[in-house]
Amino acid sequence: MAGNTFGTLFRITTWGESHGPGVGVVIDGCPAGIALDETDIQKELNRRRPGQSDITTPRKEEDKAEILSGVFSGKTTGAPISIMVKNLDVDSSKYEELKNTPRPGHADLTYELKYGLRDWRGGGRSSARETIGRVAGGAVAKKLLLLQGIEVLGHVVELGGIRAKPVSIEDIRENTEKNPVRCADMEAAVEMQAMIHAVRSEGDSVGGIVEIIGTGVPAGVGEPVFDKLSAELARGLMSIGAVKGVEFGAGFKCAQMKGSQMNDPIALRDDKIRALSNNAGGMLGGISNGEPIICRIAVKPTPSISKEQRTVDMSNMKDTRIKITGRHDPSIPPRIVPVAEAMVALVLVDQMMRGGFINPVIGEK
Amino acid sequence: MAGNTFGTLFRITTWGESHGPGVGVVIDGCPAGIALDETDIQKELNRRRPGQSDITTPRKEEDKAEILSGVFSGKTTGAPISIMVKNLDVDSSKYEELKNTPRPGHADLTYELKYGLRDWRGGGRSSARETIGRVAGGAVAKKLLLLQGIEVLGHVVELGGIRAKPVSIEDIRENTEKNPVRCADMEAAVEMQAMIHAVRSEGDSVGGIVEIIGTGVPAGVGEPVFDKLSAELARGLMSIGAVKGVEFGAGFKCAQMKGSQMNDPIALRDDKIRALSNNAGGMLGGISNGEPIICRIAVKPTPSISKEQRTVDMSNMKDTRIKITGRHDPSIPPRIVPVAEAMVALVLVDQMMRGGFINPVIGEK
Amino acid sequence: MAGNTFGTLFRITTWGESHGPGVGVVIDGCPAGIALDETDIQKELNRRRPGQSDITTPRKEEDKAEILSGVFSGKTTGAPISIMVKNLDVDSSKYEELKNTPRPGHADLTYELKYGLRDWRGGGRSSARETIGRVAGGAVAKKLLLLQGIEVLGHVVELGGIRAKPVSIEDIRENTEKNPVRCADMEAAVEMQAMIHAVRSEGDSVGGIVEIIGTGVPAGVGEPVFDKLSAELARGLMSIGAVKGVEFGAGFKCAQMKGSQMNDPIALRDDKIRALSNNAGGMLGGISNGEPIICRIAVKPTPSISKEQRTVDMSNMKDTRIKITGRHDPSIPPRIVPVAEAMVALVLVDQMMRGGFINPVIGEK
Amino acid sequence: MAGNTFGTLFRITTWGESHGPGVGVVIDGCPAGIALDETDIQKELNRRRPGQSDITTPRKEEDKAEILSGVFSGKTTGAPISIMVKNLDVDSSKYEELKNTPRPGHADLTYELKYGLRDWRGGGRSSARETIGRVAGGAVAKKLLLLQGIEVLGHVVELGGIRAKPVSIEDIRENTEKNPVRCADMEAAVEMQAMIHAVRSEGDSVGGIVEIIGTGVPAGVGEPVFDKLSAELARGLMSIGAVKGVEFGAGFKCAQMKGSQMNDPIALRDDKIRALSNNAGGMLGGISNGEPIICRIAVKPTPSISKEQRTVDMSNMKDTRIKITGRHDPSIPPRIVPVAEAMVALVLVDQMMRGGFINPVIGEK
Repeated sequence: MAGNTFGTLFRITTWGESHGPGVGVVIDGCPAGIALDETDIQKELNRRRPGQSDITTPRKEEDKAEILSGVFSGKTTGAPISIMVKNLDVDSSKYEELKNTPRPGHADLTYELKYGLRDWRGGGRSSARETIGRVAGGAVAKKLLLLQGIEVLGHVVELGGIRAKPVSIEDIRENTEKNPVRCADMEAAVEMQAMIHAVRSEGDSVGGIVEIIGTGVPAGVGEPVFDKLSAELARGLMSIGAVKGVEFGAGFKCAQMKGSQMNDPIALRDDKIRALSNNAGGMLGGISNGEPIICRIAVKPTPSISKEQRTVDMSNMKDTRIKITGRHDPSIPPRIVPVAEAMVALVLVDQMMRGGFINPVIGEK
Repeated sequence: MAGNTFGTLFRITTWGESHGPGVGVVIDGCPAGIALDETDIQKELNRRRPGQSDITTPRKEEDKAEILSGVFSGKTTGAPISIMVKNLDVDSSKYEELKNTPRPGHADLTYELKYGLRDWRGGGRSSARETIGRVAGGAVAKKLLLLQGIEVLGHVVELGGIRAKPVSIEDIRENTEKNPVRCADMEAAVEMQAMIHAVRSEGDSVGGIVEIIGTGVPAGVGEPVFDKLSAELARGLMSIGAVKGVEFGAGFKCAQMKGSQMNDPIALRDDKIRALSNNAGGMLGGISNGEPIICRIAVKPTPSISKEQRTVDMSNMKDTRIKITGRHDPSIPPRIVPVAEAMVALVLVDQMMRGGFINPVIGEK
Repeated sequence: MAGNTFGTLFRITTWGESHGPGVGVVIDGCPAGIALDETDIQKELNRRRPGQSDITTPRKEEDKAEILSGVFSGKTTGAPISIMVKNLDVDSSKYEELKNTPRPGHADLTYELKYGLRDWRGGGRSSARETIGRVAGGAVAKKLLLLQGIEVLGHVVELGGIRAKPVSIEDIRENTEKNPVRCADMEAAVEMQAMIHAVRSEGDSVGGIVEIIGTGVPAGVGEPVFDKLSAELARGLMSIGAVKGVEFGAGFKCAQMKGSQMNDPIALRDDKIRALSNNAGGMLGGISNGEPIICRIAVKPTPSISKEQRTVDMSNMKDTRIKITGRHDPSIPPRIVPVAEAMVALVLVDQMMRGGFINPVIGEK
Repeated sequence: MAGNTFGTLFRITTWGESHGPGVGVVIDGCPAGIALDETDIQKELNRRRPGQSDITTPRKEEDKAEILSGVFSGKTTGAPISIMVKNLDVDSSKYEELKNTPRPGHADLTYELKYGLRDWRGGGRSSARETIGRVAGGAVAKKLLLLQGIEVLGHVVELGGIRAKPVSIEDIRENTEKNPVRCADMEAAVEMQAMIHAVRSEGDSVGGIVEIIGTGVPAGVGEPVFDKLSAELARGLMSIGAVKGVEFGAGFKCAQMKGSQMNDPIALRDDKIRALSNNAGGMLGGISNGEPIICRIAVKPTPSISKEQRTVDMSNMKDTRIKITGRHDPSIPPRIVPVAEAMVALVLVDQMMRGGFINPVIGEK
């Protein structure tokens, strides 16, 4: 399972299972001299935390971040930053009965087939709690980006077939955190919330689409050929559980477009060379062009549903049926927003270090 | 530009520009003892080669592969395999006039902004000729996969709004290479070909969607968390020029689905634990489940079109307009098929080595 | 400081400072199904721990290992294994006065010049406590090696000019842990111990040479060219603080030898192709030949001495003199033995996984 | 054999066998805008080339470098630089008889045991011709270092028991290339040359020690813990065939020193904090301190000797004896000098890019 490290110069390594003692991350490659304390981390963890609203899992976790290394007198030292979050509200009782019956849509079966055993308590390593390390690492990345004038903003643009109307970056900044679905179109947000309540009452769940925007990214970020900014973003975003698709700018719509529609015209605006539209999603040839970076991810419906489903009992190799009664979010998109933002922020910092935009050793003055 | 290497245990490093002496690849990590000669490489290069049909660029290139190392007495030795293809039909005349006017939708501007200079002849490093190294590397990867009973098959499923009807794997194997658009639905293929002729006569171009399927992949391939099979496939596929989106299985459709629709039921079939549908695209938690791996990519319309477009003349920093008159494919999907297959094959071999499925040292017996 | 990860398929990431809350390691890439508990780790940490004898620092640390992830029902799961050791006996008082006066032979000045600030308490990240994570990771590596019949054994062969007489592997296994200097020649051990007492009473310190032997390593381990087994061992061993030289087999003596003396004759022994001597140190062309792997490292005298030394007061940029009065080992070789063993074990496991000798996913049956 | 790539941000990938069509290197991560042509490469290749003097192998190779990519209008573009050198004077006749009898001290047996087959012509991949790619890559690295005021200088300090007297950096710069043994002490050089003639006439060979110095390296280069400058240098130098030991500064002598002797006193010189001696070899805690970087390597005697040696005939698994009659250098140190310089230069550039000292994208103005 040597696959728990992400990044080249700015790197996170995450660890921990849903029902073990805790989860955590080691952030390696943070420049020295950056003001950092636990509130920086906590702010982002609180956005990811379960139990924020009536549409999330009722698991009660404070998700309190402890910084164990790499910070001295309120500043980063250049040493690895180890952050730990203890698991407190652990209840494995509902999982014991699922030990031998892999849940459809979950990683239970694939872990079992790969490793010959698995920590079945709460999904073990494949639980959404794994994303705590990503969000904590992303919180540090966001601090570094802010020093460069870069913001990473996520919002839900579609949920259960309900589409938000097009919104401005200001709308996203303003509205997203004001409603529990994290939709910047406040009217669609109400409908989406109702939809979530409805599917939950049916014992079902629902998928959606999340958009993540990077503003203020200078031109020239990204390495050509294999380490394109777009390729690294795709890898980072697709590595989040439940994501089944990634697109940039016009994305899949480009399949139905002509070159004359897709190409963003180039023109001078305030003496700068700019694109007049942004079908490219801020990247050409995998390198940023100075326009906002636009990413969208397809998020599948939560696989844990209480409706009856077919599966196999591995203890006797017989077909069987299960109903899943643990504590689950009926829809993932609202809570995936901070996770997706974290992955975009991590990629941006790493690529900006690789491209000489952020000094990897010396931070803010 | 340290971004020209792809893979961990099975690795390719590509080099070369469109109008330089040639392009090539170093394949590192191929096991010893595999029968390999230039025809293995040539077969795949011929599928990618320009001038195959009346819907591709008229540039005439034989794309003849020379193996320069790593093979002795007809077998691989474990040493790096260096493959070179010379550029023969180079005509930079049409590019000189575009030197100062970045082409919309191209990497001209981003390379210029990143590096302060660029090889403007034929797109330089950002040319589609860069993919020759990928295809040559992929040819070796495909040989290794075939020894494991794995096939990687690509086909065009949508082009300019025309959608192919659903096809079987047999249809893909049978039909794809029979028509110049590489569409396994022979009727849609005719329409797509007509569409390509039509847009070309308008001086325009058109996008599409390509599907790549991996058959016979055993369960357990892929590393959890960041190095998921899906994440590595997304990175590999998104690193191909012109790709603006990647999805697996149900992909973006999952946004409109409920959990009860999306989850693939699990059941015994011939005493094996199988998924009864494949919305997951053959991967759960980023690990293969034994079902076919299903990837789809959105390919943008060729940015080089002869219609007039707005751009900026960088020599005098004034708005201007250009018409591009070089030799170009009016639609990329047909020729991207072997490139996308190569990337999928490269990821599969690398992940199978990392997971202990393919011995990295000793090849076929 | 993105340099805290070691290994490709079997990887450790360490974190922590001498006087922070604790130190730790994340071990990524351990196969599933290996029996593992805290006693496996503790056994090795106890060998590295301060306060084992009267020749080590009086700092009192239990160095109690806590496993926070990756183990379930007594077995590894393939998930990252996070191990933490709390710092208990922290006394920063002696360091405050050294804040502005870099200690000769220490990393104080280089950290300060690189980062512009440093955690000066107890050496911060450059403290020998950093090696706890290495030893904990090495403990897991040693378990994996033992399943392959491989042992890694270190011993002190020279200290302050006193040379141990040549010993057998049995002597090393038998004697090393019986004396506080970890010298397998029991007579030399007594002299070395006396030497350490003598230099300590002078307020000085003394260097030495440690040998590490890998027994039972099969032929074929190591990747040619840059990732040679010897190259990776050299990197791993040289990354330990205080190491100033690394050699294999005949080592630096080869400079005075002729080819006819250096070359190990090849002959059949019990129907196996063997080397009749081991000047090669068990590696040819960077690949193991089936003979014991023989590494030696030069360990400098502890830089912290109580004799007066010249330095600069960085607060006023004036020449000054210091006497260092903290708690220190007067000689590093005895305590570096388990650290050096750990690095050799980590390299061997990683290279054996890369070479297909150890399955990276499935452990013991 | 995925071990043919070296470096993180500035990376080389080498390929090629002794008796194949040629050897080469792909240099990835060179900044754009650096003036570069084939003479820059040729200058260094000529120093490594066989047949330079009467103490090297009589194999006649021009070793003419061809740049195949990455340079446009006389400047690097940021794209990978592919360099090829054709093999011209290939004579495999002497090797056919050695096909089944592994040469003592060579990689023949270990390659055979690892891969089950090998290219036995001229040593195949394990030939010294493999170092051409290193030297070509090092030539580019040296150009980048020179722009930073850094020089990398190698010289032979010991050969067959003859030790050069201590020399200044000016002596090295002045004298080394004036004599075929590359010894900066001109008197010792004469003795060494005589020694080489003597051992050759006996059908034997002789080892030595080479020192490599990096001058002008600023303080702060190197990443703490595992990616220390010293660790990366050790890896790079030990990856060269025939190297059996690496040391820095006082090196193995530190084993016999006291702390008060080993520690380099710190003092102000011209208002700069300097070390008054250089036992540290320019690195503390793995980070450069602004003093010259001092590396020394132990080079074994050439294993190919014409004296009779014991080996095994693998075709019938019987003990046998061989005399090696191919074309070989009787002593490696003189020709290893440019190779060792190349490895030091490659490590320095990579670490300076990682540390923000060299911009990885934009080169000279």
